[in-house]
Amino acid sequence: MTTEERETVSLIGSDKVQDTAVYGANGEKIGSLERVMIEKISGKVSYAVLSFGGFLGIGDDYYPLPWPSLKYNVELGGYQTMVPIDKIKAAPKYARSDSWDWDNGDQALGLDDYYGVVGA
Amino acid sequence: MTTEERETVSLIGSDKVQDTAVYGANGEKIGSLERVMIEKISGKVSYAVLSFGGFLGIGDDYYPLPWPSLKYNVELGGYQTMVPIDKIKAAPKYARSDSWDWDNGDQALGLDDYYGVVGA
Repeated sequence: MTTEERETVSLIGSDKVQDTAVYGANGEKIGSLERVMIEKISGKVSYAVLSFGGFLGIGDDYYPLPWPSLKYNVELGGYQTMVPIDKIKAAPKYARSDSWDWDNGDQALGLDDYYGVVGA
Repeated sequence: MTTEERETVSLIGSDKVQDTAVYGANGEKIGSLERVMIEKISGKVSYAVLSFGGFLGIGDDYYPLPWPSLKYNVELGGYQTMVPIDKIKAAPKYARSDSWDWDNGDQALGLDDYYGVVGA
């Protein structure tokens, strides 16, 4: 299946979103999406997991970002976040080898609080 | 990363949803999800792409299903559809080698009409 079939003007395949570039406020690429976390019942994406992949001297850790902090930028062809890079670097994260307890409400709440997401 | 970290009680990773089993109304496995199509802007899953993978004598084609026609069944550990298998078999589909024009509103509308999805 070609890339074209997995990405259109308005839709993106779950197998394609995983490689999508993430850009900072200034339009510079800061990393890419490792995966998104989908609410099983509602089918809504609640978190995107960002990997810097060594970009900007940041290592291999995973940075979960609340979905509302990312906006798709058609011109850039990827997601853009207005969260300053320093704020992301200091955010709750987990190492590739660690686990993130997605079912832990406190942990999720901490993340939403950190990014100032209301009602997420 | 272990399965446990990619699937929780309420959330599922986009890289995990792609292998999730799909069950029919009677609880029998009918296939699995090949991918889901996510609306780039809203982050909502609009279609799930079902692959029968040779199950039930149905070949390798892809069957796009409107997301509302699937419900997550905790007991089964996968998605369940109440759409009769015969109806899915006769539905709009595309071959693995073909493309599906996701941006074609008429085609999407045809699919929603076929499955009786309102306002999708």
